[in-house]
Amino acid sequence: MVPLNQWIKIKAPATVANMVCGFDILGFAVNNPYDEMEMRLVNRAAGQASITIINIDDYNLPTDPEKNVAGAALLALIEEYTANSIIEKSLASESASSNQTSGNNNLVDFSTIGFEVKINKLIKPGSGVGSSAASSAGAVVGANYLLGNPFSKDDLVRFAMNGEKVASGVKHADNIAPCIHGGVTLVRSIFPLEIVALPSPTLFVTIVHPQIEVRTADARSILKQNVQLKDAIKQWGNIAGLVAGLMKGDYDLIGRSLEDVIIEPVRSILIPGFDELKKACKAAGALGGGISGSGPSIFFLSKEKETALAVEKEMNTLYDGLGLAHHTYVTTINQEGVTIEK
Amino acid sequence: MVPLNQWIKIKAPATVANMVCGFDILGFAVNNPYDEMEMRLVNRAAGQASITIINIDDYNLPTDPEKNVAGAALLALIEEYTANSIIEKSLASESASSNQTSGNNNLVDFSTIGFEVKINKLIKPGSGVGSSAASSAGAVVGANYLLGNPFSKDDLVRFAMNGEKVASGVKHADNIAPCIHGGVTLVRSIFPLEIVALPSPTLFVTIVHPQIEVRTADARSILKQNVQLKDAIKQWGNIAGLVAGLMKGDYDLIGRSLEDVIIEPVRSILIPGFDELKKACKAAGALGGGISGSGPSIFFLSKEKETALAVEKEMNTLYDGLGLAHHTYVTTINQEGVTIEK
Repeated sequence: MVPLNQWIKIKAPATVANMVCGFDILGFAVNNPYDEMEMRLVNRAAGQASITIINIDDYNLPTDPEKNVAGAALLALIEEYTANSIIEKSLASESASSNQTSGNNNLVDFSTIGFEVKINKLIKPGSGVGSSAASSAGAVVGANYLLGNPFSKDDLVRFAMNGEKVASGVKHADNIAPCIHGGVTLVRSIFPLEIVALPSPTLFVTIVHPQIEVRTADARSILKQNVQLKDAIKQWGNIAGLVAGLMKGDYDLIGRSLEDVIIEPVRSILIPGFDELKKACKAAGALGGGISGSGPSIFFLSKEKETALAVEKEMNTLYDGLGLAHHTYVTTINQEGVTIEK
Repeated sequence: MVPLNQWIKIKAPATVANMVCGFDILGFAVNNPYDEMEMRLVNRAAGQASITIINIDDYNLPTDPEKNVAGAALLALIEEYTANSIIEKSLASESASSNQTSGNNNLVDFSTIGFEVKINKLIKPGSGVGSSAASSAGAVVGANYLLGNPFSKDDLVRFAMNGEKVASGVKHADNIAPCIHGGVTLVRSIFPLEIVALPSPTLFVTIVHPQIEVRTADARSILKQNVQLKDAIKQWGNIAGLVAGLMKGDYDLIGRSLEDVIIEPVRSILIPGFDELKKACKAAGALGGGISGSGPSIFFLSKEKETALAVEKEMNTLYDGLGLAHHTYVTTINQEGVTIEK
């Protein structure tokens, strides 16, 4: 456990959910952009909340813990920690009464202690590269470190999903899982939660964020609730191909599998220039790509850095031509997930 | 090329299509049961068909090449072979006219030569373990060997799919692909055809064939043409999990992923005792399993041979109790596909 008042620094990566064909199940973390956070445990006065959020960026996000994604994630963590603490204390007192030693002197009492969290969002909210997930995931990984790591990574994903619920109304894990685990992750099942790490070869990632607003809730609501079986079969062929391609390190198979016949045709209409951009990026040599999460960011994967840079050039040319403000990143897959600076 | 009149012996394995969650895309070959075939090239008299089918079993399958699955597959092979031969001959004559040597003396002329095929079906037609695929695949692999292997395995899959069309009206490859390639295969795409070999750990397979008739065409026609997006998401989570589990050799992940929320609930009503059998087999320790292809055979996968035998016992107990004639196999995944006895 980290002593009271001692700040720790946290780096929480951006993430790309869906990975084209894997709607709601696949995602990966990238090395740039990322959020910076600081956290510490502090004594709190009576009546003071157990979580204090301090925004050190200009986004004016809510600081009420229940309305802030990091806050909501931390509240879930504190609730389970406290419930477990009560059980452990009761087990400890049983042990004590039978004259055995108790190892639970390090338990934090959240009736007198709280978290202070400083958030510097470098991942723009609403950009579609897991901005809310980075805050939620960063907060719970930081909290776990401060408390002496009582929770598993899968526990932390569960807590952080409460942040996603605040952000978009749905407890999804396709950004949270790669943000916490790093690399490419599969959410095989949400209830019960099961996350599978998927090995991947070196991949370069080019991301463009056109500065338009696509609300996650809107991007969800335009989806059809039913899909044709024949389309679903095509989609699961591509998903199986993508997983096999990543695990075999077969770049061509990865490229051929990066096709989405279900979600992209509906969602891409929300993003200006999407079809042209896709053609241009593939012509520049990208393996494939598509909408990042619910957009508006778009990502493409490349085998070589030079290709990723050529893809970036195509993105700039297209959005400059459309007169649309945008920002690009050329990066790689982040293999560590949220990290604590020690 | 094998000389005229010389018989070759062929072994064509049974196959399990779909593999629970991978409807129309996944399948694997097993070491038992298998069909036995013999084939040779013969001179044929004018007016005689290019393919002579000789059934040496009691199933009275059609011997007209266009109505026989092996015949239909061979017709497709001969057509492409002949078309390519014409191109090669024309190239050869160009070479000859420019005083270069021609290497095409081994071309078979199917206007004067034909195939004789003896088929001993040990895989009962209509049992749901790729009986038609074994005949089609065995025939084209045998023909390719007789002709000096001019075709790739993927070419052979394409030809053999014509046999599946005769059998069920649909050119599907989920039995043909594993029958020809061996092991577990993914049909990532049908048009264009792309088959991906999936490595797998040692798995024991228990199969029960209850002696009822389920026509593939019927089993297809009862499927709903639309599926709920939320079910499709569950399904592709399981497919991705199954592929990852097979490639990682993670038996528990394989087991958890062997769930089908789309096809099995509809098709299992055609198979007496399905739900009870599934419960009993999983209680006996099977990793998971379900309907083989379109049924009526049911398969379960186990990590250990003893478990596979315990599963067989449960199958016998249940179908004995129902008074339903049945046959069981305990086998392993066949890694070679169709083989030629040399």
